[in-house]
Amino acid sequence: MKPLRALAYARRHRPRFLAELKEFVRFPSVSNQPQHARDLRKCASWLAAHLRRIGLEQVRIVPTNRHPIVYASWQHARGRPTILIYGHYDVQPPEPLDEWRTPPFEPVVKANNLYGRGACDDKGQLFTHVKALESYLKTERKLPVNVKCIFEGEEELGGSPGLENFVNRNQSALRADAALMSDTRMLGPGRPALGYAQRGNIRFELEVSGPQHDLHSGNFGGAVHNPLQALCEIIAGLHDSDGRVTVHGFYDKVREWSDEERSYMERTGPKDQDILHDAGVPREWGEAGYSLYERVTIRPALTVNGISGGYQGAGIKTVIPARALAKISIRLVPDQNPREVEQLVRRHIVQAAPSTVSVKMKTLGISNTALVNRNHPALRAAAFAYQKGFGAKPVFLRSGGSVPAASIFQKKLGIPTVLMGFALPGDRVHAPNEKFHLPNFYRGIETSIWYLAAAAKLGAARRENAAQEAVHA
Amino acid sequence: MKPLRALAYARRHRPRFLAELKEFVRFPSVSNQPQHARDLRKCASWLAAHLRRIGLEQVRIVPTNRHPIVYASWQHARGRPTILIYGHYDVQPPEPLDEWRTPPFEPVVKANNLYGRGACDDKGQLFTHVKALESYLKTERKLPVNVKCIFEGEEELGGSPGLENFVNRNQSALRADAALMSDTRMLGPGRPALGYAQRGNIRFELEVSGPQHDLHSGNFGGAVHNPLQALCEIIAGLHDSDGRVTVHGFYDKVREWSDEERSYMERTGPKDQDILHDAGVPREWGEAGYSLYERVTIRPALTVNGISGGYQGAGIKTVIPARALAKISIRLVPDQNPREVEQLVRRHIVQAAPSTVSVKMKTLGISNTALVNRNHPALRAAAFAYQKGFGAKPVFLRSGGSVPAASIFQKKLGIPTVLMGFALPGDRVHAPNEKFHLPNFYRGIETSIWYLAAAAKLGAARRENAAQEAVHA
Repeated sequence: MKPLRALAYARRHRPRFLAELKEFVRFPSVSNQPQHARDLRKCASWLAAHLRRIGLEQVRIVPTNRHPIVYASWQHARGRPTILIYGHYDVQPPEPLDEWRTPPFEPVVKANNLYGRGACDDKGQLFTHVKALESYLKTERKLPVNVKCIFEGEEELGGSPGLENFVNRNQSALRADAALMSDTRMLGPGRPALGYAQRGNIRFELEVSGPQHDLHSGNFGGAVHNPLQALCEIIAGLHDSDGRVTVHGFYDKVREWSDEERSYMERTGPKDQDILHDAGVPREWGEAGYSLYERVTIRPALTVNGISGGYQGAGIKTVIPARALAKISIRLVPDQNPREVEQLVRRHIVQAAPSTVSVKMKTLGISNTALVNRNHPALRAAAFAYQKGFGAKPVFLRSGGSVPAASIFQKKLGIPTVLMGFALPGDRVHAPNEKFHLPNFYRGIETSIWYLAAAAKLGAARRENAAQEAVHA
Repeated sequence: MKPLRALAYARRHRPRFLAELKEFVRFPSVSNQPQHARDLRKCASWLAAHLRRIGLEQVRIVPTNRHPIVYASWQHARGRPTILIYGHYDVQPPEPLDEWRTPPFEPVVKANNLYGRGACDDKGQLFTHVKALESYLKTERKLPVNVKCIFEGEEELGGSPGLENFVNRNQSALRADAALMSDTRMLGPGRPALGYAQRGNIRFELEVSGPQHDLHSGNFGGAVHNPLQALCEIIAGLHDSDGRVTVHGFYDKVREWSDEERSYMERTGPKDQDILHDAGVPREWGEAGYSLYERVTIRPALTVNGISGGYQGAGIKTVIPARALAKISIRLVPDQNPREVEQLVRRHIVQAAPSTVSVKMKTLGISNTALVNRNHPALRAAAFAYQKGFGAKPVFLRSGGSVPAASIFQKKLGIPTVLMGFALPGDRVHAPNEKFHLPNFYRGIETSIWYLAAAAKLGAARRENAAQEAVHA
């Protein structure tokens, strides 16, 4: 039962698919920036209309506290399994703008890559599944499985707050056998990878305050503790000289993996030099005793993502700033408890803060880790599909990032998530000049077509679920 | 020989003087920000026209590499001394804008204070002398001394680069017996102070670079050294836990002052609690063994004035930034050699930088210290004028700030500078909501009138200088 007609359709319509993806990327759907709230609504409407046009049903734009979820389904494959397809249409902020070679929201194709914020993360990858569904519906008039699509607009906020509520309230309507998403990376061109583990994270802001207003550093320098300096002291103190986090108890619950798992990782995962090459740095850094792949997947990490304080314009302004702000995120691994780590860090910072300044720590969000058994049938079907789409057997890969959706589906719906990434390590996800490798876009569509075909054979406990239950906000 | 007519004129015209000062403050003459270059030219033209209108001669707008100098003179007091009046019409950047209660360049009077960027530093203080000159010229048709005015537009760039060149090229045309400027602070309302010492400074930018572009901190956190963290480590390492600068050799040439000088400072200077109150901080910080007044005047200090790196918008963006930037200034005291200290700091930073990142240090400018003998006749005349203008005897005060002009006049023209400040400690110089206390504006004008009268009696070596030599760029 080869999906030949769908595959032929997908190949024939590549130029139009690309044109549509460019339309999709053009929306500046930056979920983090309140000024873009309307752009997210417009983007959601565009996507909903698109899903309707390709033949999906029950298409709804479901409001959340911030940016809506686009839902759609097709449930006429009686007796067949149900696949929950997930993606996110929101994107990271494009800043720093001056480092983009072309404007972030004016997608441009150069040398087989589509450049633009979200081209890869996650509009391009999300769109592979939309185009796979279209390819079936426009040729076969049906899908090989039942499908429920959830495309959210809050992934880049971190924690997917609206998604968690939505899934909580629609546990029965969202019943499925497995989830499928493409929001992770391959090992390299032609080297597909299936994610089976994601780190969790805690994100927070740390504010250090001193004088009531900025002071002239000539008049007060030497007698007043500078909040910016105090912030540097606190941040410098969060790691020891061996790259380990100094927070008391931070590593206590970190799972030590078996030699078997570690040697599997060594065999299948990226090498140190691959990671250094992808990062564009000459030298490694971090915890001794672990490969770089291990450091970014089975070891936790604390990163300061941004600092602002004092004068940042041209030249110099000789002030002691009244306050300084840092944005910090911590990547968590099994079996760290996010709330517990949050408390440990909070205690550490309160103790580290000198009495000459005051500190405030605000938690912005928390995501759990996600872990899938590599032998689950849904993953085997995905491996088969990859082999068909890319002509190569995928490796099973851990990711250092966090996809809150995977842990939400695991926790709330009891289903595994297939993390079938089409991003390349050099796609500059979250960075200026983000791009999507167009051969991966086209192969991704074919891989998704193959996956839906293979998923039809999944043994499934819940395939009797034929009643179409409506979702609600 | 009391300047009664000039004083009466000054009192009668206060409302107009204030209206004119507001016009002056309205120019956003921010020398540090290239987008304001035109505003500086407009402000200079306005000032030159004003000086012409009040009766000064040889009025010229002298170009420099960046922002012009406004020059004017009146040299008909044959056989009398010559006073060089200095001020600067450029202002500090107004940022952070959201902390201003009224727009920085829309001057507003509230509760006897004029609010606006530059109201105090230095437009308001500069203007006291302009209005004193006007008060004489419009009543007596002459001045009690010869006067040369230099009003520059590059003081807030630090180092007054154009002024130094201008003075270098016009040493003969600028010959004078003493310089007079108002760009420093009083001890408090009704407590005038004459500056006799200023710290020098070195200003530089420190850039730390790591990956070639921003990285996703999920994918790379734990394996790549974060330039922002490395910057924090370097900055934290610039001070020890006692608040002393750790740069090797930094204190080697710092002059130790006599017990006599230190007890004079203790008697006359602000107390620790005054400085803490002015700063709006509950606790002191810094080198043990020195009063806060000593720490900010006879001890050097290193201040990080700004840091930028990574994501600074709303929410969080989980990146490892490609680079991080700090702006740092060092206040110098006798007998530190600026160039030598610059080299010591450069060496320290190169050694402190971990091999996982690269650092670049760019010197933005250097100013020398300035020191005047408290017993110089020009300072005694100033003390007399203060007594007349404010009804109080001034104390002789050291300042922690730097007025490059004073060290330039000392070095290039061999004359002392009277630092006759009219700013109050609470005037928020360099900070949002800068203000000028209007009673100090009016008393400042009268003090300047008295000073010019008293200066007529200065013994002077060069009063034969009657030929009017033109200045050039």
